[in-house]
Amino acid sequence: MRTQVAIIGAGPSGLLLGQLLHKAGISNIILERHSGEYVLGRIRAGVLEQIAVDLMDECGVGERMHREGLVHRGIELLFAGERHRIDFPGLTGGKTVMVYGQTEVTRDLMAARAAAGLPTVYDTGDSVSLHGFDGGSPVVRYRKDGQEHEIQCDFIAGCDGYHGVSRASVPPGAIREFEKVYPFGWLGLLADTPPVFHELIYANTDRGFALCSMRSATRSRYYLQVPLTDKVEQWSDDAFWKELRLRLDPEARDRLVTGTSLEKSIAPLRSFVAEPMRFGRLFLAGDAAHIVPPTGAKGLNLAASDVKYLASGLIEHYQERSGAGLDHYSDRALRRVWKAERFSWWFTSLMHKFPDEGPIAQKLQEAELDYLVHSQAAATALAENYVGLPL
Amino acid sequence: MRTQVAIIGAGPSGLLLGQLLHKAGISNIILERHSGEYVLGRIRAGVLEQIAVDLMDECGVGERMHREGLVHRGIELLFAGERHRIDFPGLTGGKTVMVYGQTEVTRDLMAARAAAGLPTVYDTGDSVSLHGFDGGSPVVRYRKDGQEHEIQCDFIAGCDGYHGVSRASVPPGAIREFEKVYPFGWLGLLADTPPVFHELIYANTDRGFALCSMRSATRSRYYLQVPLTDKVEQWSDDAFWKELRLRLDPEARDRLVTGTSLEKSIAPLRSFVAEPMRFGRLFLAGDAAHIVPPTGAKGLNLAASDVKYLASGLIEHYQERSGAGLDHYSDRALRRVWKAERFSWWFTSLMHKFPDEGPIAQKLQEAELDYLVHSQAAATALAENYVGLPL
Repeated sequence: MRTQVAIIGAGPSGLLLGQLLHKAGISNIILERHSGEYVLGRIRAGVLEQIAVDLMDECGVGERMHREGLVHRGIELLFAGERHRIDFPGLTGGKTVMVYGQTEVTRDLMAARAAAGLPTVYDTGDSVSLHGFDGGSPVVRYRKDGQEHEIQCDFIAGCDGYHGVSRASVPPGAIREFEKVYPFGWLGLLADTPPVFHELIYANTDRGFALCSMRSATRSRYYLQVPLTDKVEQWSDDAFWKELRLRLDPEARDRLVTGTSLEKSIAPLRSFVAEPMRFGRLFLAGDAAHIVPPTGAKGLNLAASDVKYLASGLIEHYQERSGAGLDHYSDRALRRVWKAERFSWWFTSLMHKFPDEGPIAQKLQEAELDYLVHSQAAATALAENYVGLPL
Repeated sequence: MRTQVAIIGAGPSGLLLGQLLHKAGISNIILERHSGEYVLGRIRAGVLEQIAVDLMDECGVGERMHREGLVHRGIELLFAGERHRIDFPGLTGGKTVMVYGQTEVTRDLMAARAAAGLPTVYDTGDSVSLHGFDGGSPVVRYRKDGQEHEIQCDFIAGCDGYHGVSRASVPPGAIREFEKVYPFGWLGLLADTPPVFHELIYANTDRGFALCSMRSATRSRYYLQVPLTDKVEQWSDDAFWKELRLRLDPEARDRLVTGTSLEKSIAPLRSFVAEPMRFGRLFLAGDAAHIVPPTGAKGLNLAASDVKYLASGLIEHYQERSGAGLDHYSDRALRRVWKAERFSWWFTSLMHKFPDEGPIAQKLQEAELDYLVHSQAAATALAENYVGLPL
């Protein structure tokens, strides 16, 4: 088999890239180790910056998002027992975000890819291997239904996440990795209950962080900061709701509608960046190259900006015979990545209780939050990062 | 002896307060454990916010400051080998800071106090003790020239710094202390050489922080981040200049004029707040209640805002028979204190190398600095804190 771009991974990054390349007449094949159902079953955040919304439109898959997604014009910061609103359009010259679950993004992209008849190979398991990307003729091999397959290509796009084969295929001496692990996790609960509030509430409390989020007007997603030693089995639904109530302000506490969890899980928080994001003819994009803690919902949005830069570079290569876009890919992407890493680290540090820090830490957080909600400049800095820095 | 307000400590806080009270016709006596020469010999920073400048004018001691002080309209941030300017007036609607050494502030206030014939008792040593401030008739006792003295007063103002007797006189159960010690110190060098640049340069480097500051157009003050285990004897002038050069950009390196040090010392960095700042008829102000790390030069300025609040409260008490200002003193002062603590902690964290943090810390700092100098909102947040948040 031969294609122009072999894409490893059928998550949002790979699917977005495949769609953009297809629109530009560039052939591509996606290989995915899991099944389509498995990919759709992963519960992830869903706050889209304008650039991600625009990218969905550019891919021709924005119709359902615009119909069902929720435009959010702000968030609420809860600290010292009171809620304060950050008004996005007022602070950023009209910008907003779109709440639309990552699962739905993936579903729309999968449907569009299928409708266009583009090749996606699911269930490759661990069989994928990448070859020759440091030369001119990369090859991707995999096994499927008991048979060996080989794809000849011009470029490989590694969109296969943190644990994927793409980054793991780079010689250790060619890559530098930066990592920070946080001393707590997020216990998430999904329920078919109306959200406690029509915007997200980020809560800093002396019991730890809480987040009231949502997937739709009838499906809520709540999170609690928990010790990393906690097991999800220790947390009954009742225990979750009880603890969440203790981290809310009285008004939200009264309005909270509880219900049976559809899903409950504990996720660790990590900051991670691999540099560079290009190795010859292999390009990393999205979680394959970087992970952010979920505070501020930058993960999917960074994947979108990587894909936007990478697609531009590849289209420039094929249409204009210029390597400039690909040559600048890593630097351009990383500059935005590091800013989002900085924001996610900052917002995480501001809102969580750090077990090893003394009581002054909570006071400094409250002083920063007090400053933030009363300073136009500081509130704007939060808002402009939340809605997404310019490309 | 009897006075209305007994002031403990003849540093800038005590002297400013004494002057403001005197202007309002309120009698006061200052007790100082050291000699006047000793107080003047302490080398401290000297970047005054507008509120401190205004307070000097209000005290009638601003004349020399306006003549000799240097108005600074910005600072330079050096990181990743390049300098970037933060323009204060452009970002804050015209605000600036005044570079005028704390020693000079103290000298002008001492001269004014002497000229007005106001009582100051120097060299009390450790003999001062505070009594009855939880009741209606506080008493201050001290020994001088072998004799016991007693001052009857309405109020006691504790302006005697971190190690002073005032905070130490409060029953432990009535006070809560918050503290953070930083894992490095500042090695400072004073020299009669022209400053390397007409504005301050704050440098983030992979060798650690450096600051190029000044006292006047002919007297420079430089600082290097050093391990807390370093002794000042280990640092010859030559070693200092050599290390400073390594932390500067090429242009500054070429322009640096070195010379013999007039003073060289290592200071630890600490964040500290005691709450509340009022205990009956005892009020704490300045370093007696809080310490900031020197990055951003907030120490003297916080003392000035404390004194401003406290003087207003006392004047209100005597002139309007209202206790409202004194009742709100602690809350008002602490709200501003915590914001300055937050800023000083943040600026310290942004600019220094933390020995226990991995390589991602430097990358996050550079990402934040890159964001800061390219975002109007983030640059404004820095500038508005540096020139001083509103009272």
